[in-house]
Amino acid sequence: MIDWIAFDADDTLWKNEEYYLSGRDRFLEILQKYGIEIEDIENVDQFEVDNIQYFGYGVMSFVLSMIEIGIELTEEKIHPSDIQKLIQLAKEMLSHEVVVFEGVSSLLEKLSASYPLMLITKGDLLHQQRKFAASGLAQYFRATEIVSDKSPGVYEGILNRYSIEPGRFLMVGNSLRSDILPVLELGCWAMHLSGHPTWSHEDDPLNHLGQERYLEVEGISQVIEKLVEVDLFQKQS
Amino acid sequence: MIDWIAFDADDTLWKNEEYYLSGRDRFLEILQKYGIEIEDIENVDQFEVDNIQYFGYGVMSFVLSMIEIGIELTEEKIHPSDIQKLIQLAKEMLSHEVVVFEGVSSLLEKLSASYPLMLITKGDLLHQQRKFAASGLAQYFRATEIVSDKSPGVYEGILNRYSIEPGRFLMVGNSLRSDILPVLELGCWAMHLSGHPTWSHEDDPLNHLGQERYLEVEGISQVIEKLVEVDLFQKQS
Repeated sequence: MIDWIAFDADDTLWKNEEYYLSGRDRFLEILQKYGIEIEDIENVDQFEVDNIQYFGYGVMSFVLSMIEIGIELTEEKIHPSDIQKLIQLAKEMLSHEVVVFEGVSSLLEKLSASYPLMLITKGDLLHQQRKFAASGLAQYFRATEIVSDKSPGVYEGILNRYSIEPGRFLMVGNSLRSDILPVLELGCWAMHLSGHPTWSHEDDPLNHLGQERYLEVEGISQVIEKLVEVDLFQKQS
Repeated sequence: MIDWIAFDADDTLWKNEEYYLSGRDRFLEILQKYGIEIEDIENVDQFEVDNIQYFGYGVMSFVLSMIEIGIELTEEKIHPSDIQKLIQLAKEMLSHEVVVFEGVSSLLEKLSASYPLMLITKGDLLHQQRKFAASGLAQYFRATEIVSDKSPGVYEGILNRYSIEPGRFLMVGNSLRSDILPVLELGCWAMHLSGHPTWSHEDDPLNHLGQERYLEVEGISQVIEKLVEVDLFQKQS
């Protein structure tokens, strides 16, 4: 009933949002030295989102936005040494070790015996490639697509390139906005990992519940069970 | 005799280095306000090259490096408003119009009638995609590969993925380091556009002359002539 299963990477297969939250905390500590409180920086998310059109998704975009916000909120009083700390933070975030979620490796091993698997991830090209190589998971994937955005058009391009019918494609991921809604729109299957950490920008107010081919599980450990339940996977004994 | 022709993009098909040189000039003007002269920043290139391991290639990497160098050379005296100017510069560089070199479009039109063409480019993912879309050249290409580095291993991966024999692949580009030497190492054909502007880091001291399957022309307008000369292209009348 399906020909390919695709997985998102950040916060689906390995830790990611946690590093951004901790980076954000370090940024807040810096700003507090200048008397800026958390409520002053409620628009930080919006600032980052506005900058996506230039910088795309990823650590460099995040840090460039923090530098801009820091300059603006401190009315140009932020000390260059604090800006240097933000650049150092970027380097650390770009080179931290990759922590694969529990159960991912055995899940991919089982699924890859029955389906070709594809990784579809967005963010800094070099960083995504490095994390994928360091994850030890590359052996399970037949194809890798690093994209700058996860719009329906981008997914459509991938389906065309691999000659996959939408109804025979399943995307698994933590982000409603990026992994679930665009593929449902194309008529694909989508499985949302609702218990995984997710950047608020990746939520989506649209109603995805009750949509045909929408599946939801808490986390990685329930993926097989759900696939068996909807007859997309034959459990090997 | 060959099955695919691949082209580099930046400084091969469209203007690029010029924007970096002009960005560099604006950076120098800023630093001069702090009494820093050109000779003090001779190591700027090295700084950028050292940062490639974290930030990869592209505008964001370039600007993050300039911010770091600016902080270091001014001994943390650079004013935040000048750092903001560098971020603004990044946004401008990431959204400037794409200027395709003269003759590129007609060259690609002719070649694409005889060969499948591939674009192989490195840099910021979103920026490269946007430039490609804006160039009007996408219609001539069968495949696009945006990579984080142009090592022999990366080219080998591409050849494997498309099932191309090295001896039946030609790469055309302006950079000896990125477009020419790695593919010659694999046994491919390579054509160097020696008259195109090139970042000094993209030069290479290794001797490429006299290597088998190495071709050299001044610019885009001589590509067809050279291919005819070595019997890789049948000139249509």
